[in-house]
Amino acid sequence: MTITLKVALLGAGTVGAEVARILTQDAAQLQARSGAALELSAVVVRDTAADRGPHIPRELVSSDAEAAIDGADLVIELMGGLEPASTYIRRALSRGASVVTGNKALLAEQGPELFALAAENGAELSFEAAVAGAIPILRPLAESLAGDTVTKVMGIVNGSTNFILDKMDREGADLEAVMAEASALGYLEADPSADVEGHDAAAKAALLATLAFGSGFSIDQVHTEGITAVTAADVEAARAADQVIKLLAVVERSEAGVLMRVHPTLISREHPLAAVHGAFNAVFVEAQNAGELMFYGPGAGGAPTASAVMGDLVMAARHRLAGSAEPTRLAAEPIAALPVQDAITRYALALDVADAPGVLARIAQVFADHGVSIEAMRQNGHLDGAAELRIITHAGTQRALDATVAAVNKLDVVTGITSVMRVEGN
Amino acid sequence: MTITLKVALLGAGTVGAEVARILTQDAAQLQARSGAALELSAVVVRDTAADRGPHIPRELVSSDAEAAIDGADLVIELMGGLEPASTYIRRALSRGASVVTGNKALLAEQGPELFALAAENGAELSFEAAVAGAIPILRPLAESLAGDTVTKVMGIVNGSTNFILDKMDREGADLEAVMAEASALGYLEADPSADVEGHDAAAKAALLATLAFGSGFSIDQVHTEGITAVTAADVEAARAADQVIKLLAVVERSEAGVLMRVHPTLISREHPLAAVHGAFNAVFVEAQNAGELMFYGPGAGGAPTASAVMGDLVMAARHRLAGSAEPTRLAAEPIAALPVQDAITRYALALDVADAPGVLARIAQVFADHGVSIEAMRQNGHLDGAAELRIITHAGTQRALDATVAAVNKLDVVTGITSVMRVEGN
Repeated sequence: MTITLKVALLGAGTVGAEVARILTQDAAQLQARSGAALELSAVVVRDTAADRGPHIPRELVSSDAEAAIDGADLVIELMGGLEPASTYIRRALSRGASVVTGNKALLAEQGPELFALAAENGAELSFEAAVAGAIPILRPLAESLAGDTVTKVMGIVNGSTNFILDKMDREGADLEAVMAEASALGYLEADPSADVEGHDAAAKAALLATLAFGSGFSIDQVHTEGITAVTAADVEAARAADQVIKLLAVVERSEAGVLMRVHPTLISREHPLAAVHGAFNAVFVEAQNAGELMFYGPGAGGAPTASAVMGDLVMAARHRLAGSAEPTRLAAEPIAALPVQDAITRYALALDVADAPGVLARIAQVFADHGVSIEAMRQNGHLDGAAELRIITHAGTQRALDATVAAVNKLDVVTGITSVMRVEGN
Repeated sequence: MTITLKVALLGAGTVGAEVARILTQDAAQLQARSGAALELSAVVVRDTAADRGPHIPRELVSSDAEAAIDGADLVIELMGGLEPASTYIRRALSRGASVVTGNKALLAEQGPELFALAAENGAELSFEAAVAGAIPILRPLAESLAGDTVTKVMGIVNGSTNFILDKMDREGADLEAVMAEASALGYLEADPSADVEGHDAAAKAALLATLAFGSGFSIDQVHTEGITAVTAADVEAARAADQVIKLLAVVERSEAGVLMRVHPTLISREHPLAAVHGAFNAVFVEAQNAGELMFYGPGAGGAPTASAVMGDLVMAARHRLAGSAEPTRLAAEPIAALPVQDAITRYALALDVADAPGVLARIAQVFADHGVSIEAMRQNGHLDGAAELRIITHAGTQRALDATVAAVNKLDVVTGITSVMRVEGN
């Protein structure tokens, strides 16, 4: 006896087309793995006239999402955006159909509500494809580390900005030149602001925090800075200090709550995240017992993202057959999201200062007055009698560090602060 | 209402002690995550007189494994070795208790039988701790990639040998000196042969292949070479070519079957595995749709390995409560294990040759006669009129490469072959 599960596919873009291909080409293997034949029953698109190739037969193409959802056991949502995706996912979950989605924007806004709806209806809402493409990260966080306590997650979760920063590092080029090249290579969207201003990474940060800490978080709780202010000089200074600049999504747990932030970050070249080149993604996890783990792989692309969708689909099918859906469970008591001023980080600063006796002492005194301790200080003389001073601090709250920077900026011996960047890792 | 699941712990060494500590210290969190109170009901050890600290109360300590197993819902086996571990695990599974183990030696010998026994009894046999310590790799392979086709896995799965090779690379020291140091630091067993001769990595290779390809494989099907023949000169030559030598466990799938091998391997310094330093482990996975993934973390140690055990335990508890054990399923048709002569790899060779006209041509002709194509050839003159020749081949079968090496060795212009090493990655 063959059991058949009907699969409705909402959206047939790059990822959706790959999902349809895999459902067709690997049908036998998928059946062996899931225990049921996975039959593509409908493909919902806006433009039903377009030819979508051999893996999406015309007779399955429809614009009637409701009918497609109501006739399916499993629903794959790859339309993106808030609406109508949200309405469709709610409809499917309410009917008890499990849903697989890659929609980070929706989950970062409505995740907790949708998880609750899934749980109420004994359905699953899976979303491995929403963070770091093909990299298995959500299942390891939720299951493999279920007996441990995750304290911090740092991710390179936006391939476009990693491609840009990596190229700046390798070639010494400036941001504009590299962005033009990335755009020509198709690594940037027509409107690159979601990438370069950090919003894409921020949505993923909220999802990582939700899974790592078991409480619902949304994108507006994430402090977000993009890479637009990173200069070739910053990259060069990092290189001289054996460091590299990466756009990191950092989420961390303390007694007080969870702190989420996205910003350009200095890390040592010895750190595993420093070896993540080009458009690759990686997620670095610190857990109380496991120590430091890293998950690395392609963060985007049709086939890699489809791999994540298919893994979720096979597991949803298995659980459906066994009557054992495993809905995402969030803590009964929500965990507070903390303001970025509470973040404990190290700062690297570059200052233009007068090259005169006593300058270093005066600046160091300002740091001491604010309770910020200096790890390293280095002065490079300029030809014109001015000097550049580079300071790396020990860890302090962002509140104290920002107050220090403001006070230093008021000193008459300081001509300007040319760079302030956070430092992560040892 | 609180549901309690009784947990029997067999073995209380470094990892077992950490498991007991976590069960006590994190009891509330474990209950929230698993849905049941996880109560340590017995700790089975040989020496019942020893004081085992605050987390292992004396009244739980016993030498009666049968009674402990029969009174438990979940059994954790951390004794190691084949017997009595095998008998105890079979007893637990036969009673329907799920078992969590870190026993790679046992699984690499009897894995398929034990998985079948678990499935028959609706129990789970989980073993994340058996490969690469804390790194979540088995669940990602079995679940996250359930909708994809894994083609190759390359792992740095033995921390001791990675520590040694990494130190040789960084310090230019030779094997014996570094081994002495590793031994003093506790990175080597009293009898280091299981590590340095590759047997530990071979057991893990068999397990990785079992999970990645869904068929049972055993350690005696793994071609195994250790690191004892790696010289400081090999490491230096690798460095000059911007490569590094790693002991890799490589398992790969072709139409004909699965090939498993453990050997010192040259990889480019740009490869993600090259950035794995010290005693860390990493597993690099190639899948048809996902592309290249890597999982990185500590490969040993009490707390990290206990983290993997606890993840398995929480999931086993959850599944037991839901009545939805997920036993490891192997393919009905076993997949053939192929002989290492069928391996397709690249070779790097170092030869001592006469420094005379025509020598290169004669050697190149031998390669051509055997159908092995040369990627790069480089000659370094010696002072004494001899020369060293370094050759890197394109990919060929080990059969063809070995025949080539034998034929080259017979040429009168070749004084000796000083190094033959396989190359992986691009």
